[in-house]
Amino acid sequence: MKEKRPLVHHITNYVTVNDCANITLFIGAAPVMAEAPEEVAEMVSMAGALVLNIGTLRREQVGSMLLAGRRANELKIPVVLDPVGAGATRYRTETAQNLLRDLHIDIIKGNAGEIGTLAGVGGSVRGVDSNGLTGDPIYACRSLARGTGAVVVMSGPTDIITDGQDTLLVNNGHEMMGRISGTGCMASSLVGAFAAAFKDHVRSSAAALAAFGIAGERAALKALSPYSFKIAMLDEVSSLIPKDLETDAKVREP
Amino acid sequence: MKEKRPLVHHITNYVTVNDCANITLFIGAAPVMAEAPEEVAEMVSMAGALVLNIGTLRREQVGSMLLAGRRANELKIPVVLDPVGAGATRYRTETAQNLLRDLHIDIIKGNAGEIGTLAGVGGSVRGVDSNGLTGDPIYACRSLARGTGAVVVMSGPTDIITDGQDTLLVNNGHEMMGRISGTGCMASSLVGAFAAAFKDHVRSSAAALAAFGIAGERAALKALSPYSFKIAMLDEVSSLIPKDLETDAKVREP
Amino acid sequence: MKEKRPLVHHITNYVTVNDCANITLFIGAAPVMAEAPEEVAEMVSMAGALVLNIGTLRREQVGSMLLAGRRANELKIPVVLDPVGAGATRYRTETAQNLLRDLHIDIIKGNAGEIGTLAGVGGSVRGVDSNGLTGDPIYACRSLARGTGAVVVMSGPTDIITDGQDTLLVNNGHEMMGRISGTGCMASSLVGAFAAAFKDHVRSSAAALAAFGIAGERAALKALSPYSFKIAMLDEVSSLIPKDLETDAKVREP
Repeated sequence: MKEKRPLVHHITNYVTVNDCANITLFIGAAPVMAEAPEEVAEMVSMAGALVLNIGTLRREQVGSMLLAGRRANELKIPVVLDPVGAGATRYRTETAQNLLRDLHIDIIKGNAGEIGTLAGVGGSVRGVDSNGLTGDPIYACRSLARGTGAVVVMSGPTDIITDGQDTLLVNNGHEMMGRISGTGCMASSLVGAFAAAFKDHVRSSAAALAAFGIAGERAALKALSPYSFKIAMLDEVSSLIPKDLETDAKVREP
Repeated sequence: MKEKRPLVHHITNYVTVNDCANITLFIGAAPVMAEAPEEVAEMVSMAGALVLNIGTLRREQVGSMLLAGRRANELKIPVVLDPVGAGATRYRTETAQNLLRDLHIDIIKGNAGEIGTLAGVGGSVRGVDSNGLTGDPIYACRSLARGTGAVVVMSGPTDIITDGQDTLLVNNGHEMMGRISGTGCMASSLVGAFAAAFKDHVRSSAAALAAFGIAGERAALKALSPYSFKIAMLDEVSSLIPKDLETDAKVREP
Repeated sequence: MKEKRPLVHHITNYVTVNDCANITLFIGAAPVMAEAPEEVAEMVSMAGALVLNIGTLRREQVGSMLLAGRRANELKIPVVLDPVGAGATRYRTETAQNLLRDLHIDIIKGNAGEIGTLAGVGGSVRGVDSNGLTGDPIYACRSLARGTGAVVVMSGPTDIITDGQDTLLVNNGHEMMGRISGTGCMASSLVGAFAAAFKDHVRSSAAALAAFGIAGERAALKALSPYSFKIAMLDEVSSLIPKDLETDAKVREP
């Protein structure tokens, strides 16, 4: 990745956007945030991946997501959707569903409540936090993957990644990661950066979440206060090398 | 609060929004930022408090503040208004006045210039910084509280909290808190989180400002460079326990 | 500057806006971010400088840039333009050109690709990152300065500052500054703050970049992980005193 330095075009929320920019840089890719309808199709054509995050969606922004997404689809640039808060309000659920209908989404990255909502198995979301889903989470992920043609990435204590057939579980990470703002959005940025660099999106997404989790584990050895932990975690992301995945990734099949 | 983990719905500015999200998490509540008119009424109905902050107001956003505020009023969910920059431009002053006219605001949290402006006693604001107000600040706060039915919270070296009758003064804090961006907005997030957890909004607001001030005092023992201080302060917020208020809060009547 | 505490009005992107607010405070000025068309002319009339940054431009925001810029021009308040991403998309290039046509811009601050694009000598920009320009960078800067009447500030390992006649080169800085998000935007905020305090905008801009570079050099002695470096750099900005420029600035003529 650090050789290619792929551009990762984000159309994302204004809460965690700075964290997304920094983590994209730190992993060795190049972030760009652009959402004007006048430019998104042109901007995405330079990119290695497009990350769509509905954390603070507005109607105009969703229009730009469609414009950028269509161009990305034409150019076979991978598109990652983070359906933040789907299940919390009808507008978020329907927007996520519309993006899945009108675009080819390569990777859906969400929490249990969001994935459960989109899979139609029943998911519960309060604000932007998951209250979990009904039934078996692997089943829900596979079902959503088969229904949409996307690789589904469900973050949680054990992350689940599946294309409906191949399934991987990732056990890296630390509970401190749930105590700061932006972890989910940063994970989506990494999933986008890895998707830009590697074609197999089940394996690239597992690698992204394992890398992030390893950074979190190492940061927790240095700091257990949340803001200090966040800084340590971002610093650790910048220090990751490919060998770290070989030695420390906890990836397995179910 | 950490048991209830109330959702605090923010419609706020894009400058300090990440700080607001983190401090809300660190005090034990759950932040959500949402401002699309399509969803704000639904989102706020899940919330324990609504925080309206006009730091980078736009017409569409003010429309969403009214939609969310009306629903919050119907459901008796406390509404906090931070009239950032009221007094600096007519648009900010009038927007704050309109929100006070069209909604029931439970708590107004501002600096001396903003409160003086809204109280009609003469307040001076340059950009988003207070240049103070004319006359007695406690009188101005009580007058605004009586005129609006809101609890008025004026931040400063000594914070003033009043419903027009009951008045409390808080002397916690550290001058470093005035040297970083976002302190006022973060205080409003805490005021919102405490309002969600406790019904008496004079006491809940005094507790919020005392807690924040204690975190600032402790942080100043660790770091006196401003960005390091900010990180230490946010870490200290996450370490606060109820007993800290008993031992370290400097709250008194005038 | 710390005596005057000039107000620096920003109309800027939502990615790095918090960094811009903090660095403006830390250097001793007062930031305000306001972009509603209803208020920008009134807000800028209080300001010592106006910083226009098109990092996440939208049509409405560009309209507000024009309103604020015209009022600033009438009042002889210096206007800084950071044409983020000019050269990457036609919309960014044309917007920067339109702002240069419709306003008197006092200072253009960009990277090599952006300046090369606007100078018409050929510049290459991918996302918001420079891939350099064609030919001699000093020639490009002088050419753009003469064509626009602006002081041109090109950031890079060696910064170039010129009004078309007087030219200064600044060699302060550290390569870590290129590894974090927001460095370019923060530099523009400092250029604005210094322009508010000093009339000679070649010298004020060289001082701003030298000051920032010195802070970066000192931070690199303390931290070489990027997020920790960023914090150290911002802390160092807050510790700068005028004497630091006398002793540590590396400013020369070409």
